[in-house]
Amino acid sequence: MPEHSFTHLLAVLVALLVTAKLLGVLSQRLGQPAVVGELIAGVILGKSLVGLLDPSDPVIHAFAELGVLVLLFEIGLHTDLKSLVKVGSEALTVALVGVALPFAFGYGAATLLGLSPIPAIVCGAALTATSIGISARTLTDLGKLDTPEGQIVLGAAVLDDIVGLVILSVVGTLVGGAALSVGAVTLTTAIAIGFVLAAVVLGNILVPPLFRGIAKIEASGVLGVAGLAFAFLLALLASSAGSATIIGAFSAGLILHNTPQRSAIEKSTTQLGHFFVPIFFASVGAAVELGTLLDLQVMGVGLALIAVGVIGKFAAGYGPFWFKGRKSLIGIAMIPRGEVGLIFAQMGLTTGALTSDLYSAVAMTVLATTFITPPLLAWNVRSPATPPSINRPGEGGIDDLVAGAATDEFPRSDATKP
Amino acid sequence: MPEHSFTHLLAVLVALLVTAKLLGVLSQRLGQPAVVGELIAGVILGKSLVGLLDPSDPVIHAFAELGVLVLLFEIGLHTDLKSLVKVGSEALTVALVGVALPFAFGYGAATLLGLSPIPAIVCGAALTATSIGISARTLTDLGKLDTPEGQIVLGAAVLDDIVGLVILSVVGTLVGGAALSVGAVTLTTAIAIGFVLAAVVLGNILVPPLFRGIAKIEASGVLGVAGLAFAFLLALLASSAGSATIIGAFSAGLILHNTPQRSAIEKSTTQLGHFFVPIFFASVGAAVELGTLLDLQVMGVGLALIAVGVIGKFAAGYGPFWFKGRKSLIGIAMIPRGEVGLIFAQMGLTTGALTSDLYSAVAMTVLATTFITPPLLAWNVRSPATPPSINRPGEGGIDDLVAGAATDEFPRSDATKP
Repeated sequence: MPEHSFTHLLAVLVALLVTAKLLGVLSQRLGQPAVVGELIAGVILGKSLVGLLDPSDPVIHAFAELGVLVLLFEIGLHTDLKSLVKVGSEALTVALVGVALPFAFGYGAATLLGLSPIPAIVCGAALTATSIGISARTLTDLGKLDTPEGQIVLGAAVLDDIVGLVILSVVGTLVGGAALSVGAVTLTTAIAIGFVLAAVVLGNILVPPLFRGIAKIEASGVLGVAGLAFAFLLALLASSAGSATIIGAFSAGLILHNTPQRSAIEKSTTQLGHFFVPIFFASVGAAVELGTLLDLQVMGVGLALIAVGVIGKFAAGYGPFWFKGRKSLIGIAMIPRGEVGLIFAQMGLTTGALTSDLYSAVAMTVLATTFITPPLLAWNVRSPATPPSINRPGEGGIDDLVAGAATDEFPRSDATKP
Repeated sequence: MPEHSFTHLLAVLVALLVTAKLLGVLSQRLGQPAVVGELIAGVILGKSLVGLLDPSDPVIHAFAELGVLVLLFEIGLHTDLKSLVKVGSEALTVALVGVALPFAFGYGAATLLGLSPIPAIVCGAALTATSIGISARTLTDLGKLDTPEGQIVLGAAVLDDIVGLVILSVVGTLVGGAALSVGAVTLTTAIAIGFVLAAVVLGNILVPPLFRGIAKIEASGVLGVAGLAFAFLLALLASSAGSATIIGAFSAGLILHNTPQRSAIEKSTTQLGHFFVPIFFASVGAAVELGTLLDLQVMGVGLALIAVGVIGKFAAGYGPFWFKGRKSLIGIAMIPRGEVGLIFAQMGLTTGALTSDLYSAVAMTVLATTFITPPLLAWNVRSPATPPSINRPGEGGIDDLVAGAATDEFPRSDATKP
């Protein structure tokens, strides 16, 4: 009878929700974003310590994956496409520099440490994609997602994920021993970028009349469920088209942002997010194996990768040299690596391109960059601004937005009160 | 990579949410409760037809189980314990008659059809427990949960589940070939009843200060998550104590009903319910194997069990002869069998007490009673009332409550508009 496994799931959910919320609130009291507490809750409940939360359990894994989709859908709902397009050239520059530098630095460092070309390429590639979940959530916690800096990070991270998927297919071909085809690379790129464009263009034509019809049904809950189903549908389509599910969920939010039904959909999504999203972040934390971090050799390679990974992404913030906002904030927000980095590491491990020690080193990099970013961002936001770089009248510089941080404009702005 | 199975899950969720909501709304337009549409959505997507929704998939199973917990928690939140206690003697009578008659009739019919004692006992036992989920949801859809009739059904179904669990342990012992111990039976009974009493008494002392403290945290979402975690915790405790998880979730709702934080918790739970609850009902529908229903012998036994099952429970509605409300409504609302009936059938199958044909017959009974109840209830509510039996001034007879049905008092009152 599956009764036993269900009561185990209940125990995991109770422990996870209570610990994540408690530590999340504690984090805020200490001036950190709530997400730090949720990550630590995962580490505590994960295999290294309590051993209750197993992120590879199929049900927990499904909840966590749905959590990141709900999060990206929420973020899309709050994102004005026009303000993303306005910072398009800055975002593209940050994305490209933020892929090129970490890849080159990672490959270089790995080669210097004596790795052969293929493992060195996998290490470099694992450093390329920013984890949009961590950055966006932290910027939201800090009330900074709606600033020009926040929009650049959001745009760059989305583009970044697209580039990361392209690199993944290229590296996959290389590791598999096959010759690279320029056609295949072009196709992967075109599909990923084409998907977002097609979804937004078609969506803006087809979706408003659809949701106007749904709103007429007048049964409470219908709009919220319809919005969620739409987000899952686009996630599915994005995945079928060869792109990432999170890009689909984000596009769904972008499309619904302009509809009059947005606030009803938002209300419902926010409540689901309170349940699903902490499961995602706790799962990320639970994947940490504290034991492997104590191995000296793993630590050496890991520290080298962390160093070049942080420097490469931080430098990317200064890529759009013409941008007059706070470049350091952009650079820090680009630091966290997440799922895509772990997918690279896993691919390397299963194909034999990475030893299990190298795998641990890459995983350590992903986790370290994830953990250091929220406190670094909080510190950066609070440190005094260099006046000429942040006061752009009419564009909403950092100082203007500190006041706005307490409003309910952001998906999880609850977390902005320290 | 589990990526494939996750996109499959997304496809299932999109199909389920869209179909369940569409057919739910269609049901309402046809004057039926929304739950009928959700059940039919499950049949369509289930293994008999489309084959997309597999209720035994671990993730779907977990979602469905969480769905029934969220539903019972919602129902508990809306239930005033005082009005339950007020109808306590009526509820207890309905519960006891509603267990005794179907058991006796089921055992008798099975014996007449030539079954030996043990399978006949299992058949009888499978007919004892009313499925609180279906009844409560349908009464809510019809705006009748807050009437004295609705409260009697709710109380009787909860007591029913307790009695069902006791019978389950007794029958389990019999089927296992062991001698019955009066001590063990008494213990199971005491634990199940004791759990609800202890939870409500202790809960009313300990919970209000706890939730007053939680409310002071002032981060949005904390109260909703805390309420949900509390419901899951009591479900877990109930299960550990040898009772059913749904009894724990219902008790949690009863306890929080009296706190000032109730409306915040309710708001969050309702949104989660819109997502989780249809997954439960669609799963119930998806378990139907239309093929087995065509076998003549299975159909014969099934029809006999359905007949005695319906008659036995309907008669139970007339058990509290002194009650002046609409007894037929109570009798009909007690008809649906659900999980507990299926657990009996499954236990019979795995221990060899039931052949697979008998199993199909029992499953058919569970499903038929589940499907006929919502339309029967809708028909009963709309049929003209016998004046002396329903108009009790001050107690809220049926007519008084038709007007109230359109308010937002009920967890899913959205469904009350036909």
